[in-house]
Amino acid sequence: MDHATSKDVTKKILDRKIIDLSHTLSADFPTLELPPEFSQAWAFKQEVISHYDDRGPAWYWNNFSCSEHTGTHFDAPIHWVTGRDYPNNTVETIDPQNFIASAAVIDASAEVAANEDWLLTVEYLQYWEARHGKIEPGSWVLLRTDWNKRIDNPAAFANLKEDGAHTPGPTQDAVEWLINERNVLGFGVETINTDAGQSFAWPLPYPCHTLMHGANKYGLQCLTNLDLLPPQGALIIAAPLKIKNGSGSPLRVLALIP
Amino acid sequence: MDHATSKDVTKKILDRKIIDLSHTLSADFPTLELPPEFSQAWAFKQEVISHYDDRGPAWYWNNFSCSEHTGTHFDAPIHWVTGRDYPNNTVETIDPQNFIASAAVIDASAEVAANEDWLLTVEYLQYWEARHGKIEPGSWVLLRTDWNKRIDNPAAFANLKEDGAHTPGPTQDAVEWLINERNVLGFGVETINTDAGQSFAWPLPYPCHTLMHGANKYGLQCLTNLDLLPPQGALIIAAPLKIKNGSGSPLRVLALIP
Ligand SMILES: Nc1ccccc1C(=O)C(=O)O
Ligand SMILES: Nc1ccccc1C(=O)C(=O)O
Repeated sequence: MDHATSKDVTKKILDRKIIDLSHTLSADFPTLELPPEFSQAWAFKQEVISHYDDRGPAWYWNNFSCSEHTGTHFDAPIHWVTGRDYPNNTVETIDPQNFIASAAVIDASAEVAANEDWLLTVEYLQYWEARHGKIEPGSWVLLRTDWNKRIDNPAAFANLKEDGAHTPGPTQDAVEWLINERNVLGFGVETINTDAGQSFAWPLPYPCHTLMHGANKYGLQCLTNLDLLPPQGALIIAAPLKIKNGSGSPLRVLALIP
Repeated sequence: MDHATSKDVTKKILDRKIIDLSHTLSADFPTLELPPEFSQAWAFKQEVISHYDDRGPAWYWNNFSCSEHTGTHFDAPIHWVTGRDYPNNTVETIDPQNFIASAAVIDASAEVAANEDWLLTVEYLQYWEARHGKIEPGSWVLLRTDWNKRIDNPAAFANLKEDGAHTPGPTQDAVEWLINERNVLGFGVETINTDAGQSFAWPLPYPCHTLMHGANKYGLQCLTNLDLLPPQGALIIAAPLKIKNGSGSPLRVLALIP
């Protein structure tokens, strides 16, 4: 590519519209609740270091704490036992070339409005491809459910009932198809879990965590604004913090729109 | 732009080489030390939630804590009292369109090897422009000093002596020129401070913090791998965490190379 063309591409990148797919990180953000016998992740907490005061006259800044899986966040293969032995399976070591990728955005908002436990099937994915084109290898598959619109009601966002969480997700077959037939980069959702809330009780529990990470693939959780993306053509920038041995990380996820 | 052209640009973006400008976040990473009368920022700390064990049989993850200015990080205008009244002056509210921008990379590694207190002047910037072309409005100015190569020796990285830190930075005139004559997006460095270590004692202390944030501009600190970037033509992706009222944030900084 000669210099003029390269400059031209740079201009076109800078001209693309950027959509922010990240929620605000605050103490109000709902955290995943696991059964009480398991250790829990920290919610987000902030404390002021100084605020233009005796503690620092000209500057304002905060300390903060959270978990690697708090807020809008990235799941690395090492997060799951099935992904533990891959080289470069942490947010520290994943090849950064993976942090920019295309996305296929599957709109199941109408289905999920009618059924909180709605499951993404192979059939649904094939019907989507018939309308929007094939899911490209190495691309994110992002499931739009409009779940993000529940964010101001943390109870509705977690949607915990006596028998566990009721949130949508992919079937085991759909996960296997995305891995084996489409070789995707990973799977992203608006909910707090890439797996359906009730999947803990399936023959293979948590198939998306188990199989995606078992195939060295990634997850994105608590995304927002997927309703602003085209079905195909968006570029996703999802670059987690370079946390030493990190299993994941809160991050800013951006989409570039043609 | 018709669909074919847009697809073509997308391919060209995905073909670009990505350079990671971020250090690993770990407990070993040196933190800024302010005079003892001021409150200090937390270093990075990590604690395991579960590691494929009783605490979580199939999953590994950590909690962590740090400050908004720990590790490779972004400074927002609200970080400094001079930037406190701008709208959208926090990492939560800055327009994400600013998170992708071109960079001018100023190589002062030879000068800094000879003099730890070396200062970037207007004259030096003008000489750089004569060789590499004008600094574009809205672009990052990144100062390469090879300071990142000290990272395995935290004492040499902080370089604190009896009279304070000895690290390079811009003169007040250079900061004013970058703001008023070039309208840059912000200023980024490999050191722990966008300002020279000795600038606390200048007539206008901390001119880069004071004037850049006072002009609603940004900072990047503790960058690495600037030696892998061309003087002009790199695109910088620097998208901080969307921390509520955040004055800054650790982040993954990426460069796209033509
Ligand atoms: N489903 C889970 C079970 C155990 C640990 C974490 C998760 C997550 O969803 C996560 O990655 O945030
Ligand atoms: N120079 C400073 C003085 C006070 C507070 C923070 C700083 C930083 O450099 C920072 O932004 O990391």
